[in-house]
Amino acid sequence: MMRFRAARPEMGQLVPRVLDAAERLDRDALRALQGERLAQTVQRAHRSPLYRKDLSEWLGFAPSEDVAAYRPLGLDDLDRLPITTKADLRAASNIEDVLAVPLENVRRWHTSSGTTGRRTPMGYSEADMVNWGRLIQRNLAATGIMAGSRVHNAYGYGLFTGGLGFETGLGPMGATVLPASSVPDVEQHLELMHQHRAQALLSTPGLALALAEAVERNPALRPPELQAGIFGGDGWSPALRRHIEVVLGIRAHDTYGLSEVLGPGVAHACDQGEGLHLYEDAFLPEVLDPVDGVPLTPGTDGELVLTTLLNEASPRLRYRTGDRVRIERERCPCGRTAARLINVVRADDVRLYAGRALAPNDIEAALLRMDAVAPTFRVVAPGRELDVLRLEVEPKASPPQDFERSVRRGMESVLDVPVEIRVLASGSLERSRGKRLRLVDEPWRAGGSA
Amino acid sequence: MMRFRAARPEMGQLVPRVLDAAERLDRDALRALQGERLAQTVQRAHRSPLYRKDLSEWLGFAPSEDVAAYRPLGLDDLDRLPITTKADLRAASNIEDVLAVPLENVRRWHTSSGTTGRRTPMGYSEADMVNWGRLIQRNLAATGIMAGSRVHNAYGYGLFTGGLGFETGLGPMGATVLPASSVPDVEQHLELMHQHRAQALLSTPGLALALAEAVERNPALRPPELQAGIFGGDGWSPALRRHIEVVLGIRAHDTYGLSEVLGPGVAHACDQGEGLHLYEDAFLPEVLDPVDGVPLTPGTDGELVLTTLLNEASPRLRYRTGDRVRIERERCPCGRTAARLINVVRADDVRLYAGRALAPNDIEAALLRMDAVAPTFRVVAPGRELDVLRLEVEPKASPPQDFERSVRRGMESVLDVPVEIRVLASGSLERSRGKRLRLVDEPWRAGGSA
Repeated sequence: MMRFRAARPEMGQLVPRVLDAAERLDRDALRALQGERLAQTVQRAHRSPLYRKDLSEWLGFAPSEDVAAYRPLGLDDLDRLPITTKADLRAASNIEDVLAVPLENVRRWHTSSGTTGRRTPMGYSEADMVNWGRLIQRNLAATGIMAGSRVHNAYGYGLFTGGLGFETGLGPMGATVLPASSVPDVEQHLELMHQHRAQALLSTPGLALALAEAVERNPALRPPELQAGIFGGDGWSPALRRHIEVVLGIRAHDTYGLSEVLGPGVAHACDQGEGLHLYEDAFLPEVLDPVDGVPLTPGTDGELVLTTLLNEASPRLRYRTGDRVRIERERCPCGRTAARLINVVRADDVRLYAGRALAPNDIEAALLRMDAVAPTFRVVAPGRELDVLRLEVEPKASPPQDFERSVRRGMESVLDVPVEIRVLASGSLERSRGKRLRLVDEPWRAGGSA
Repeated sequence: MMRFRAARPEMGQLVPRVLDAAERLDRDALRALQGERLAQTVQRAHRSPLYRKDLSEWLGFAPSEDVAAYRPLGLDDLDRLPITTKADLRAASNIEDVLAVPLENVRRWHTSSGTTGRRTPMGYSEADMVNWGRLIQRNLAATGIMAGSRVHNAYGYGLFTGGLGFETGLGPMGATVLPASSVPDVEQHLELMHQHRAQALLSTPGLALALAEAVERNPALRPPELQAGIFGGDGWSPALRRHIEVVLGIRAHDTYGLSEVLGPGVAHACDQGEGLHLYEDAFLPEVLDPVDGVPLTPGTDGELVLTTLLNEASPRLRYRTGDRVRIERERCPCGRTAARLINVVRADDVRLYAGRALAPNDIEAALLRMDAVAPTFRVVAPGRELDVLRLEVEPKASPPQDFERSVRRGMESVLDVPVEIRVLASGSLERSRGKRLRLVDEPWRAGGSA
């Protein structure tokens, strides 16, 4: 874990607060709480058209107002509950089909981004908004953000859950927020961060990387009081975390969430930086075999499946996240008792190159070992199984002699797959403020173009 | 005032609530309240570096914690207070210069859009956020929006005050909000409005017009439960209001605000539709001669100048809005006692054509008299004084014979200025979701291109 450079004068102003009681529950207490909340969740889900029929058949009774009717259902019955997929949410023709409360009890709608198909709607009741804020505040507190902290919230505000999701915690906490959504470029972000003396940055890793690139070119652009960042909404590697920490002189925290179960506020990294603490009092995790949906042995890599334990308006039973992950239950030195998610990657982004499975994060980590290459890249990958890894990269400055060959050899020695490199002019790959397009399905045109 | 078509089945669900007590104050009570709040405002402004020097010189004492020191200052002294311009706000090199509270008491930053130069920052304290929400709720209530109303909030969320400004009222009110910021196109807006059964739409007039155009082409796209809209953040004519009301089958309300004094929540139209009720308990209005800054006789057109009465973090003394307006004090049949702003137009957008001053709203109103022309247009106007009004317009469908000539004659007869028309292909002018670019300074290329 990267430590801060000693010269940072403002360091220590943002000090992580004490842990929330829910983060320190011992496993027996946590399991008892999960069991009770699972019964409430099934009761709620039973009211929702999305689950009513399946649950009525399985339970043998119609939705009941008495939670005691659901209590015989324990954590051990989890694998008998119905699985929920994105397709199930998409298929809901009427918005009330996905709700477990009357429509007038919904205070807020968000949706998925709709990049892979029809947007899936997510409704939040008043209680859901309060609960969301509390979960987010645990994430904020872990990075030292508190009342009066100056926060540059560059996540998109609007239907995307990032900006307004963090706002649900920042507002009641009393932080000083600049809602930096729709700021058009890196230069204006940095100018605004200087102007309001930002201490913390919330953004996608893509924007954080673009800000770091600008600061590398001109160190005077570094926001002088910036100390911490929470970067999520897109995958990134521990190597990129270290890079951002060094260049921006901050502590960078990973965060995890998805709009189909809540938004941000599902799991967050602590100061130890080893995996993401899942809020197990709010989400019950399973790791299933992505092919046949069978539960895997603890400690095995598989697809993360989440059951919500607090959602009132939009309960989700066993939602298949599409994320590949390993769960670590060993107690973290930070004191949090909840399970940690290790190596979260979008299953869709893992490809076979000469028989070896690699995620964009693996490629990013390998590139970051080489000083002369910019950490922005594209994998050109038509098809899902390939004989060679084809990479578009940029030199940081003008390319040194033999650049293409040295990058290719460096990558091959780390990743152990055949690599082809196309060298592009510095700065020519698009820097994204949202999700980064690191894997593109387009034909490979041989030869460099820098 | 356009009335709703009788066939609207859901009409009446959104019923305007009773007026807030502050909206029914008689003039004596209002003046007493304004006087007390002006003293508080000057006291606050005196703490801000932006005003400290000027006020200390004029008052003869340093900032005082005792509001009694400021009470001798009455409403009649208003014209002795310093004028504030956008340039003054821009010149503030340090963000704390524009604040009257310590930086840590700021809960939220917004800025102006920065389209005409450096962004001007605006800070809001906790009390400012609560107050902002209350002002917005008067606006919402006047259109019938209440707890549980389904609201499609399509204003930009983020640094722009529109989206989050309305949210400050919608959230505490308990409305059901879809934060429709960043929705990429008209089709997706309409789909989402169908999906969450929107009853009210908040947006710029430009987006409302684009939605109306889509519904005119295909009436099945009309969101069936939509009843009301609040459209602001950009100028629009009463003629466009009637057009939107007819096509969308809703009641359309104008709203007024500016980020330099608050954001939305400065003035709003009531059901009478004649001008915008200024929240005089929160803003003290003056109408000055835009050239020499001398106060004008009541009832004369001039530049609106506003002094904030409630702002805690960012008080503004006599802020020159740059908007041309007439103030009407005659009591409105709706029961609101505050002054109304009539014919608000951006002074910068008023141009002389053959010696006649016209705003884009005048041109829009004239175009809307003609059925065959789309209400989207551009005035091509290099320079500020012109001998002829040069307009780019579009036919709604394929242009009827003699289209150019009939539009030219129609416009000339209504506006009484020489007109040149360039006919563009239907749909070729950009439909903006934000501010509409209706006045462009580029050379006129003679001849049609449809």
